[in-house]
Amino acid sequence: MGYRVAIVGATGMVGQEFIKVLEKRDFPMDSVSLLASDRSAGKIITVKGEAIEVKETAYDSFNDVDIALFSAGADISRHFAPIAAQHKAIVVDNSAAFRMDPKVPLVVPEVNIEDITKHKGIIANPNCSTIQMVVALYPLHQVNPIKRIVVTTFQAVSGTGINAVDELRTQTRQLLDGQKAVAHVYSHQIAFNVLPEIDVFLDSGYTKEEWKMLEETRKIMHADNIQVSATCVRVPVFTGHSEAITVEFERPMEPEQARDILLRSPGIKVLDETAVKLYPHPWLATGTDEVFVGRIRKDISSPNGLVMWVVADNVRKGAALNAVQIAEELVNRGMIGG
Amino acid sequence: MGYRVAIVGATGMVGQEFIKVLEKRDFPMDSVSLLASDRSAGKIITVKGEAIEVKETAYDSFNDVDIALFSAGADISRHFAPIAAQHKAIVVDNSAAFRMDPKVPLVVPEVNIEDITKHKGIIANPNCSTIQMVVALYPLHQVNPIKRIVVTTFQAVSGTGINAVDELRTQTRQLLDGQKAVAHVYSHQIAFNVLPEIDVFLDSGYTKEEWKMLEETRKIMHADNIQVSATCVRVPVFTGHSEAITVEFERPMEPEQARDILLRSPGIKVLDETAVKLYPHPWLATGTDEVFVGRIRKDISSPNGLVMWVVADNVRKGAALNAVQIAEELVNRGMIGG
Repeated sequence: MGYRVAIVGATGMVGQEFIKVLEKRDFPMDSVSLLASDRSAGKIITVKGEAIEVKETAYDSFNDVDIALFSAGADISRHFAPIAAQHKAIVVDNSAAFRMDPKVPLVVPEVNIEDITKHKGIIANPNCSTIQMVVALYPLHQVNPIKRIVVTTFQAVSGTGINAVDELRTQTRQLLDGQKAVAHVYSHQIAFNVLPEIDVFLDSGYTKEEWKMLEETRKIMHADNIQVSATCVRVPVFTGHSEAITVEFERPMEPEQARDILLRSPGIKVLDETAVKLYPHPWLATGTDEVFVGRIRKDISSPNGLVMWVVADNVRKGAALNAVQIAEELVNRGMIGG
Repeated sequence: MGYRVAIVGATGMVGQEFIKVLEKRDFPMDSVSLLASDRSAGKIITVKGEAIEVKETAYDSFNDVDIALFSAGADISRHFAPIAAQHKAIVVDNSAAFRMDPKVPLVVPEVNIEDITKHKGIIANPNCSTIQMVVALYPLHQVNPIKRIVVTTFQAVSGTGINAVDELRTQTRQLLDGQKAVAHVYSHQIAFNVLPEIDVFLDSGYTKEEWKMLEETRKIMHADNIQVSATCVRVPVFTGHSEAITVEFERPMEPEQARDILLRSPGIKVLDETAVKLYPHPWLATGTDEVFVGRIRKDISSPNGLVMWVVADNVRKGAALNAVQIAEELVNRGMIGG
């Protein structure tokens, strides 16, 4: 017995990863609709050995769908997710469109899976940089409440999409060949450069991406008093977001205790043996499911603080895998399908 | 009237930059000795139109030298800087060998130039990531004392040296051509990757580079109570270190006030107009003298905090320029030469 799955944004970076993850985890599927813009309609994509034609997303795309995984941008989600929900599909939406909507659960399975029970047709998948941070911090927060987080991110270009991946590749080649690099996707050159600009700038001086890390963390962890200050930076890495996290707890926490807690927490792999240069980095995390944590140490600048380094595949756990995990849990709980 | 200058490590990354900066700033030179390892001896380098042969650094290299600029690693400095000083040369040393020696001034001209008066033959040039941070923070500290700094760095490979620049270029080409990249200089691949490892790991879990940012900041700013926690990360950038800095003052400070202070502070260029995507980035800072500051905003996680983004050319202001500025000040004060 399987389910009827729709993927909206099937030809995009995360859409392609949805397919990989569904196949790899053998998600019970009776049918798959691949939906995208009219530009991509007609393309053929193979899913579980079956060649499937990409269709343009339309009002009647969701007639026979149990679960719809969206990753085609906030505008598409705003328009089509409610339509899909009206057609009795459960939507897991990877865009920012509904994340802060009080009626929409914002879910990281390792943290707040129970929130899926409150859905009204749409469940939101958090921002990639938030997901890996809360997976790493929530187990510690349960033992010793977190008061404040200062985080600096190193975000891969795949978070922007295929165009950005192409731009990094193209600019890199241009510069190695002694040519000038031209910026299209980002405000400035990204090859051999770092840019502290992700999403739009807000009046506060923070970017929307940085603001998401505050708001989404509070919502997912059910902790409205946590203070979060983020600096989000794009780096010339294809896949894998890294985060330098300074966290202040209510009481002191020893690195050894944090390591012990994280070793037995779901979705986490501790890589923290500096004597043998073992720590997480994006190249190592690419194509894996885990959130990697390393460089765990006492914050020498604050009595109740720890510093750590957290890396995950932003397309996998930061997007597609987290959404599929939500879908699996809907299946496990019998919350899905006719 | 000019001075007799020696450059130790003349064929290295910083050595080459010493020559450029001395030429550009028209430092008054009567003669230049270019010193290096025996491997580089015999090379010819042109300084101010004159072809000069590189000599191996030896005991008698400093007989007729007024000022010796060292950048050949801590071992060479430990061995030859005292010899140069014995020969009445004033040493400006770019290595870590003497920085924390209480008898050796550690100087950033924009911050503590008066400390040069206390030298006993050797003046130390701080670590690159420390220099740009204290240039940006000291003017604020004078108005509103800083209590704590949390900093995450994005450090270019040129900070490691020419081998690392070659390694980034080689690995990048290998990966673009579909080959595997092999790591020689760093513990792991640096191309399209980021590595939270700069210098050796200490028992505290911090690296020595991170520890330097604490100790050197305190010594340069004469502020033993400042708390500093750093995470130092190598990024696939050729030149230009970037830093995400969260700073806590004794009292609140508005971003506008910080901007005003920095606008009239030496060595700083404020680039902070997010509406037109104006902020510092390494590509823009390469080959320039200034410390660039942008993204200045209230720290939403702390009442007396500011967050900012600081970028500088690590080979220029982070090393060669800072040393030459010290030499210029020795000249201006008549502290140099026979």
